[in-house]
Amino acid sequence: MEKLHILLFVSVFLIFPLTILGQKKPVDLIVQNGTVVTMDASRRVIENGAVAVSKNEIVAVGTTTEINQKFTSRQTIDARGKLVIPGLVNAHTHVPMTLFRGIADDLDLNEWLTKFIFPAEAKNVTEDFVRVGTRLGLAEMIRGGTTTFCDMYYFEDAVADETFKAGMRGVLGETIIDFPVPDNKTHAEAMAYTEKFINKWKNNSLIIPALAPHSPYTVSTEHLRNVKRLSERLNAPVIIHVSETRKEVDDSVAAKKFRPVEYLESIGFLNNRVIAAHTIHINDAEIDILKKREVGAAHNPQSNMKLASGVAPIPQMLLKDLAVGLGTDGAASNNDLNLWEEMDTAAKLHKVFSGDPKVVTAAQAFEMATIRGARALHLEKIIGSLEVGKRADLVIVDFDDLNQTPFYNVYSHLVYATKANDVRTVIIDGKIVMRDRRLLTLDENVIKKDANAYRQKIITSLSN
Amino acid sequence: MEKLHILLFVSVFLIFPLTILGQKKPVDLIVQNGTVVTMDASRRVIENGAVAVSKNEIVAVGTTTEINQKFTSRQTIDARGKLVIPGLVNAHTHVPMTLFRGIADDLDLNEWLTKFIFPAEAKNVTEDFVRVGTRLGLAEMIRGGTTTFCDMYYFEDAVADETFKAGMRGVLGETIIDFPVPDNKTHAEAMAYTEKFINKWKNNSLIIPALAPHSPYTVSTEHLRNVKRLSERLNAPVIIHVSETRKEVDDSVAAKKFRPVEYLESIGFLNNRVIAAHTIHINDAEIDILKKREVGAAHNPQSNMKLASGVAPIPQMLLKDLAVGLGTDGAASNNDLNLWEEMDTAAKLHKVFSGDPKVVTAAQAFEMATIRGARALHLEKIIGSLEVGKRADLVIVDFDDLNQTPFYNVYSHLVYATKANDVRTVIIDGKIVMRDRRLLTLDENVIKKDANAYRQKIITSLSN
Repeated sequence: MEKLHILLFVSVFLIFPLTILGQKKPVDLIVQNGTVVTMDASRRVIENGAVAVSKNEIVAVGTTTEINQKFTSRQTIDARGKLVIPGLVNAHTHVPMTLFRGIADDLDLNEWLTKFIFPAEAKNVTEDFVRVGTRLGLAEMIRGGTTTFCDMYYFEDAVADETFKAGMRGVLGETIIDFPVPDNKTHAEAMAYTEKFINKWKNNSLIIPALAPHSPYTVSTEHLRNVKRLSERLNAPVIIHVSETRKEVDDSVAAKKFRPVEYLESIGFLNNRVIAAHTIHINDAEIDILKKREVGAAHNPQSNMKLASGVAPIPQMLLKDLAVGLGTDGAASNNDLNLWEEMDTAAKLHKVFSGDPKVVTAAQAFEMATIRGARALHLEKIIGSLEVGKRADLVIVDFDDLNQTPFYNVYSHLVYATKANDVRTVIIDGKIVMRDRRLLTLDENVIKKDANAYRQKIITSLSN
Repeated sequence: MEKLHILLFVSVFLIFPLTILGQKKPVDLIVQNGTVVTMDASRRVIENGAVAVSKNEIVAVGTTTEINQKFTSRQTIDARGKLVIPGLVNAHTHVPMTLFRGIADDLDLNEWLTKFIFPAEAKNVTEDFVRVGTRLGLAEMIRGGTTTFCDMYYFEDAVADETFKAGMRGVLGETIIDFPVPDNKTHAEAMAYTEKFINKWKNNSLIIPALAPHSPYTVSTEHLRNVKRLSERLNAPVIIHVSETRKEVDDSVAAKKFRPVEYLESIGFLNNRVIAAHTIHINDAEIDILKKREVGAAHNPQSNMKLASGVAPIPQMLLKDLAVGLGTDGAASNNDLNLWEEMDTAAKLHKVFSGDPKVVTAAQAFEMATIRGARALHLEKIIGSLEVGKRADLVIVDFDDLNQTPFYNVYSHLVYATKANDVRTVIIDGKIVMRDRRLLTLDENVIKKDANAYRQKIITSLSN
């Protein structure tokens, strides 16, 4: 009888818990001991927090103690004294244009485009150019903690291939425009390329292939309708520049009696697949149309400033809870792919422009670079926050560099004090692509060498 | 006879050149093989260039070949594949306020000052606080290639002491204000402190002690006249905030019938010793007054944006060739001491604000951070460019980071693509203070530890 008691004691108090312990769920990766900035609906920030990742998915978010009670992993990353944030979302860029970084500056948009960018593109853009420029941009973005980007360029199939190989996530749109461009010479060719491109990538874990009609002023109504039909048939996003300049609006009103957003609405183009870049010169009625149609918007403060395009009504758009993300635009008009500077600039620009220092708070700026940016790309169900069921796109950021000392408020710290260089480790889709500032999927030296070879070709091409 | 010929041959063709070689002038340091951006009057950029330094002075600037023909040095720094630029000039800051970095954001100036900054200062600012905050700020500035800064705070003697010990150059102004502050309780006390402070430091190689009457709205006319007299007697610069907000202008007009610059002119306050910070809300007539009186101006784009203070008329000031420098302002309203971001922001802000993408070019922005900034501080004879006879304030900058690839134009590259983190080596007054990103005169870990101790005290003080 006594033996039975002892056995019972042993089984209940020792063996049972050990069994529970033995039943810890194995996962592939635990990031632990960091301050986890979830960007979930309650904006939970977890001190001494952890994130458990299984395959490419987040399976748990909690305190390190909680996570270690429930999960076991052969691979852990210690984020002690660091922040763990959702991967940043660059909502608008033209990634191969990194090769044109600084080719021409301090010019008006028309002169810049017609004298430099278009000739340089006509003379230099090939599939190989696109691959080299993409790799350069991917490396710069990963270094800065960007895990998803939304792109519009030529040879987008090559962009997709390089992006997938680097382990980065992208919404990648093949440009459709009503004049001959380096990859496609006619609308029919562009549509055929795009359909093939989308079908090739549509089930990829990292690549969301898209259609990218350049703008309402460079693509005809008929062709925009074709784009919309194809996007519906293939269930693919549509990326388009909208209302970047005052001239675009004036021309649209003169030619079509509608402002650009009104015009797109009038032809039934707008829906929850559309991602509209810039949306600078839009009025309240147009904001309401974008909201009603659930269009995503990509705000590019530094590019808009540099080209003197104007200031988008971001405070008003946030008041109406529009899906606004932050983008860098191409490196030729920025001249970098650094989302930390876009956050900082967005917060500051709208304060001075509106005269109200309370608009676009640090928390709102960080939101635009994460969960709201995910909404802008219509990807809020899979990325943008650290939540169970989302893809494991995590970034570990140093938190005690000189420029980050001392620390008072996490969002202020991230937006106003942290730099791209403070990013330490980047995980995309559960895979570590940068560890302790070392890129694991891209070779920096080869990238620079290839880019510099193109530099020489580009300079020569422009002097002819 | 033949022997004589041989001897002659030997002496003329071998010994004589060797003698010349032996007569190479010894110097203390040669920085060589870099691209030297001189910022001299002709804006010379020297490929494969070098700078020779003797004691604390630049004794030669030229190609590496030229310099090596004329000079010999036991110490050389190889700047191959890098840029050599004049040390950056931060024309306005409050360096100890680094300890308040991020304490309160996204507030209007009045709320921010009265609810957070003034109470935090009243409860925390001591001489030790000032020393700890100064060391933090100095370390951040040196890391970013700033070699001279213009400061206004309390216990400025402690700021001077820390600055001198760190080997940094500063125009350091003790605050004079018509209410009791942490170091001085009355105007008489402040004037006495300032006179003693100036006499103590006036012959120092690095420190230019100054008077810093806070602003025309916080210092009476009589006291401003006292300041002017003391500055003339001691030949010391005067730092003052001018026209930072619209309210300041309105109040000035209401109370004094003059706008702030007009008022200062009317009391005979303005001359070529004055450094005016902000000068945001100034009209053409006031620009002309500043020009006529040779007043230096410090433009702080990021702080002005963040506090929604307004946008200074920099394009107009540059058209009239005013001495405008770039400043970060204090870290509590920025939130960093990073001049690279100020250059980038200055160029972009004025483009979008004026609607003209050609204003404030990259070259002009870089100029404001170097030679024009030196003019703003009335130090253009000793710093701001790499020229013979100037103090040896040199910065070596990496030129091939990913965000800097490829390279087309040197000023565009510096302003739009280079980051503080690309700064590699910093030389001030002929002394290396950072080498290959390692600070040599400051201990980063001690600085962070001390700053974090104050962080805890500050948080506690504000919750009381």
